[in-house]
Amino acid sequence: MRFILAGVLALGLGVGSPATAKGDVSSFTLENGLEVVVVEDHRAPVVVHMLWYRAGAADEAPGVSGIAHFLEHLLFKKTKNFEAGELSRVVAENGGSDNAFTSQDYTAYFQRVAADRLGLMMEMEADRVRNLVLSEDDIATERDVILEERAQRTDSEPGALFREQMNAAAFLNHPYGIPVIGWRHEMENLSREDALAFYERFYAPNNAILVVAGDVKPDEVLELAKTYYGPLAPTPDLGARERVQEPPQLAERRLRFADPRVSQPYVLRTYQAPERDSGDQAEAAALVYLAEILGGNGATSVLGRALQFDEQIAVYAGAGYRSVSLDDTSFTLIVVPAPDVALKDAEAALDREISEFLEAGIDPEQFERVKFQIRADDVYAQDDVYARAERYGSALTSGLTVEDVQAWPDALQAVTAEDVMEAARALFDERKAVTGWLVPEDGEEM
Amino acid sequence: MRFILAGVLALGLGVGSPATAKGDVSSFTLENGLEVVVVEDHRAPVVVHMLWYRAGAADEAPGVSGIAHFLEHLLFKKTKNFEAGELSRVVAENGGSDNAFTSQDYTAYFQRVAADRLGLMMEMEADRVRNLVLSEDDIATERDVILEERAQRTDSEPGALFREQMNAAAFLNHPYGIPVIGWRHEMENLSREDALAFYERFYAPNNAILVVAGDVKPDEVLELAKTYYGPLAPTPDLGARERVQEPPQLAERRLRFADPRVSQPYVLRTYQAPERDSGDQAEAAALVYLAEILGGNGATSVLGRALQFDEQIAVYAGAGYRSVSLDDTSFTLIVVPAPDVALKDAEAALDREISEFLEAGIDPEQFERVKFQIRADDVYAQDDVYARAERYGSALTSGLTVEDVQAWPDALQAVTAEDVMEAARALFDERKAVTGWLVPEDGEEM
Repeated sequence: MRFILAGVLALGLGVGSPATAKGDVSSFTLENGLEVVVVEDHRAPVVVHMLWYRAGAADEAPGVSGIAHFLEHLLFKKTKNFEAGELSRVVAENGGSDNAFTSQDYTAYFQRVAADRLGLMMEMEADRVRNLVLSEDDIATERDVILEERAQRTDSEPGALFREQMNAAAFLNHPYGIPVIGWRHEMENLSREDALAFYERFYAPNNAILVVAGDVKPDEVLELAKTYYGPLAPTPDLGARERVQEPPQLAERRLRFADPRVSQPYVLRTYQAPERDSGDQAEAAALVYLAEILGGNGATSVLGRALQFDEQIAVYAGAGYRSVSLDDTSFTLIVVPAPDVALKDAEAALDREISEFLEAGIDPEQFERVKFQIRADDVYAQDDVYARAERYGSALTSGLTVEDVQAWPDALQAVTAEDVMEAARALFDERKAVTGWLVPEDGEEM
Repeated sequence: MRFILAGVLALGLGVGSPATAKGDVSSFTLENGLEVVVVEDHRAPVVVHMLWYRAGAADEAPGVSGIAHFLEHLLFKKTKNFEAGELSRVVAENGGSDNAFTSQDYTAYFQRVAADRLGLMMEMEADRVRNLVLSEDDIATERDVILEERAQRTDSEPGALFREQMNAAAFLNHPYGIPVIGWRHEMENLSREDALAFYERFYAPNNAILVVAGDVKPDEVLELAKTYYGPLAPTPDLGARERVQEPPQLAERRLRFADPRVSQPYVLRTYQAPERDSGDQAEAAALVYLAEILGGNGATSVLGRALQFDEQIAVYAGAGYRSVSLDDTSFTLIVVPAPDVALKDAEAALDREISEFLEAGIDPEQFERVKFQIRADDVYAQDDVYARAERYGSALTSGLTVEDVQAWPDALQAVTAEDVMEAARALFDERKAVTGWLVPEDGEEM
């Protein structure tokens, strides 16, 4: 009850006038709850129009894994007002491009077209928020498509199967352990009812974020959004977005995936890691540095220098961290051993380097280089209007706000070497880690 | 729709007369769907009265782990017709005992009393199928009790925590990976609404099995059951019992649990294993032999003889398999190393023995001894009226029928040595295994 009231109050405040505007980014909320973010960039007469839903694979009900992604495919079918495929055809006829993507935390649809076609895009996108018409034929046809997609991208790729099994081991309770594409045995049974249940529950203006970026004015976007998205009724009983959470991870896990198709074995390790939280982005910012310092730019990173150049144990060593996520995420280390180096020795070298790093701390010169690089990356990113739109959409569907996105560059620049070491000490807890080996069928025993 | 119709037809057939009777076991189905199994044993004027629900921890909704067990506790609170604790008090005053238990597949309530008190037991048990009255005080009080139960049985026992983390690693998708007691962070939030939702969904005469064993006649039991349980209305929309199933397990997993409280390290390995299926119990029967042959009776089993007596590597080596389970279960091997033997060496010895067993096959004399022992166990089990009742209740809540239970001793006796080897070859697939080490804080690295 409290939740619904708060929603109504928030809508009342946001109606019709910019709620936030910093530099060239503005945001509004329509009366029906649709959030709108406008990123101005007038260098070319082009606009990116994106609709993001706060609904991804991790919001699926148990047993219907893959339904979020399946529905993404189905949204290109017939609606009450348009024929199947008509949106994509109109976009192409207007010289634009369109696509869609599904992650654990969101599903998003976008078009890139000439700026004067924005109204048409909104008309067609708004239509499929509510008006999808699904036949059993659509289900049968498109289910074959996603099964084939799984066959090609996962089942025929030992590395993808390996990462899927790693992921399942990394999460004891949370749905991030289930693949976005879905488990095959569940995908085979996905039905029209399953698709409509997900659609009716999550596809609503008050569960979506509209991001428009490019050669547009905020007022024009607001007027168009009111015209096309405004008439959509909100879903009144939209519940909180609650997922099951992890219990304490108490035991170091190891996993060996053997497949005759593997030609290049490697070691992958993931640690449970915090994500960016709204109003509290400091630890995540420190982890971005940590990934860069340990495993960014091969030649100069801690792991790259030690394992690839000094010891020549690895042909590649890297680290990865995705800070934008609704719930706890993973920090990843990878070592691809040089020919004739055993995985065991490659892993031991990795462990040794991490230990030494925790003792020795960060080289001040490297830290300054990374800090400068991060700032430069941010400046360059401003040039890519699509990337800027994507940044707002992914953040706002992952529990962050426009303010968080705007505070992020400063949060990154505020990180100190000691912050990074503190985050590293908290992160490298073997009990929260999974170590995986990808090997050929007759490969090294763990 | 088909499901409901089939149910109605079955009820029509079963009303009022024994549907099945073999030896001293009879079974009926009341009009409201309650199944009744009667096991006659007139050696003592005692009766065991058990009510089993087809609802266990694996039937819980995501995020409310522990609710099945929590509800079991709450069933001893007030009902419309009796005070809190009254059932247990009446049982005790009549010189009997009572209790309840929850597993992944069932929740069961039982009393053992003088045979002439059966009607009274039924009156009180039938009352709490539908008439539970829960206050917020009950919730708060009893939630503290289950949290304390978890603290004592799990959190303060490194071996229990270890097995919990093993279990989470053993199942990639299926709820058997979630502990029956619940994850602490979810238990802390279990509410009255959660308990009532589980109660209203699963506690129904057509989702229960009444097992009465002891000094009773089937006709008397049927009459009493009709009197006391007959008036309970069935739940009309009781859905099928569907749980998410496992994807293919493709990667061998290893896990190391370190805890300063560990005084005796050991190696545990679990393999994904089939369970008894209705009408198809042969493979499970073979696995019962396999567990006995490999790790039964210490002195004469394959692992016991090799690891404890010949090589003196272990102080204990065993194997375990629980055949009764609704979905795929686990086959377990354990080696507790002798002092000064490293876990690595203990595990290597285990692997060597399994390999040798797969090559050498079963010693015919040992096979005959085990076969005889299994038959003897079955004969002795007939003496324990409580165990006989338990056997029917657990089987009927795990997808088996009265006929399956009665066919089981013959299925066991029909097993050949070649059946066992075939089951062993299918079972020992490292991709479907988790190997765990329990070690002290500064224990051996994996």
